[in-house]
Amino acid sequence: MTITITAFERSPDRGRGLARDMRVRWALEEAGQPYDVRLLSFEAMKQPGHLALHPFGQIPTYEEDGLSLFETGSIVFHIAERHAGLLPREAKARARAITWIFAALNTMEPPIVELETAVREERGKTWHPEHRAVLEGRVRTRLGQLSTRLGAAEWLEGAFSAGDLLMVSVLMRLGWSDILDDYPNLAAYLARGQVRPAYRRAFEAQRAVFAAASAGD
Amino acid sequence: MTITITAFERSPDRGRGLARDMRVRWALEEAGQPYDVRLLSFEAMKQPGHLALHPFGQIPTYEEDGLSLFETGSIVFHIAERHAGLLPREAKARARAITWIFAALNTMEPPIVELETAVREERGKTWHPEHRAVLEGRVRTRLGQLSTRLGAAEWLEGAFSAGDLLMVSVLMRLGWSDILDDYPNLAAYLARGQVRPAYRRAFEAQRAVFAAASAGD
Repeated sequence: MTITITAFERSPDRGRGLARDMRVRWALEEAGQPYDVRLLSFEAMKQPGHLALHPFGQIPTYEEDGLSLFETGSIVFHIAERHAGLLPREAKARARAITWIFAALNTMEPPIVELETAVREERGKTWHPEHRAVLEGRVRTRLGQLSTRLGAAEWLEGAFSAGDLLMVSVLMRLGWSDILDDYPNLAAYLARGQVRPAYRRAFEAQRAVFAAASAGD
Repeated sequence: MTITITAFERSPDRGRGLARDMRVRWALEEAGQPYDVRLLSFEAMKQPGHLALHPFGQIPTYEEDGLSLFETGSIVFHIAERHAGLLPREAKARARAITWIFAALNTMEPPIVELETAVREERGKTWHPEHRAVLEGRVRTRLGQLSTRLGAAEWLEGAFSAGDLLMVSVLMRLGWSDILDDYPNLAAYLARGQVRPAYRRAFEAQRAVFAAASAGD
């Protein structure tokens, strides 16, 4: 069984690991599964060939033995279901870990992306400071609640799971700001995720793509 | 086994079925599972008792036989995994249906909520028209892609699944606008979801809560 994922030919984050293929690479590394990567230009992502795999014209996709998937959450969950190491076996603990997959992607990530998008696209508008304060307030509400729930625990729900993988991946997106400095237990949680050997292997693999693309300039 | 969910004592949408307990009620009705509802005031949602169940202080939660879950996506998935009618049994078809759960909640819903929030909270700001146009453009991009993928099909991926249940629930959120008029196949898809007997039962059940609360004024 060969697994093939797609990723940016040239990542807009310059190899900092924020593109969503990083999440899938990390999950595959945790699961000990080798994979191939097909790199796509921004133009190719909008062509019929790719849209057949991903109706929203994004990366990553996942192909394996006649199955094709899109949506990072779905792909990470698929990997977690099929291989040990990313979901507990006991039914109740498994359901709780899955809850954190959704919490990362549905509750934490949207306000973080919204803030990041506003900072990138509205900078220079007279109303940006006012709007940014509102968006940052929403992010801080969620971070405060997550910080309270995590407390002094190492991971969100017992052992490391796909829920932590995605929550760490979401918190990484705040790296352009100093917001996490105000939530030391979340900053430490993020750091714990990022020193995992599987994370490091995934990070280096995605950075190598960017480095190779840059060397070709 | 008794299932208990939480819902607003007085829904801010006045019983229009937009509160997220509707999604869980609908899934339980599709699965033919009876359930109890515990109603919460806005104050109670922020108290320690509820925060122990839901770290972000929201509804719905789901309790069953010593298991407690939050996050609508996680709850709907949990119901779909345990009962027939919401996920195909064949592995590849099941993975594809799960992909649409994530697509509904991660790709389609965030820009729709963002637009709705801006219309509600920024109305009156001088910059609202400019901002709203950007947000509506993002929503239309996603609707156009979804419309293309759905085409003339009845449901997103073969038979009705939890992915359709959540996608229909997300599209419902556009009911305050006339945007869906420009995507007739999506409007028809929404209508197909809303005439399902399970949807109707769930809708009436949540509306009865609002009617009862209003009668007590």
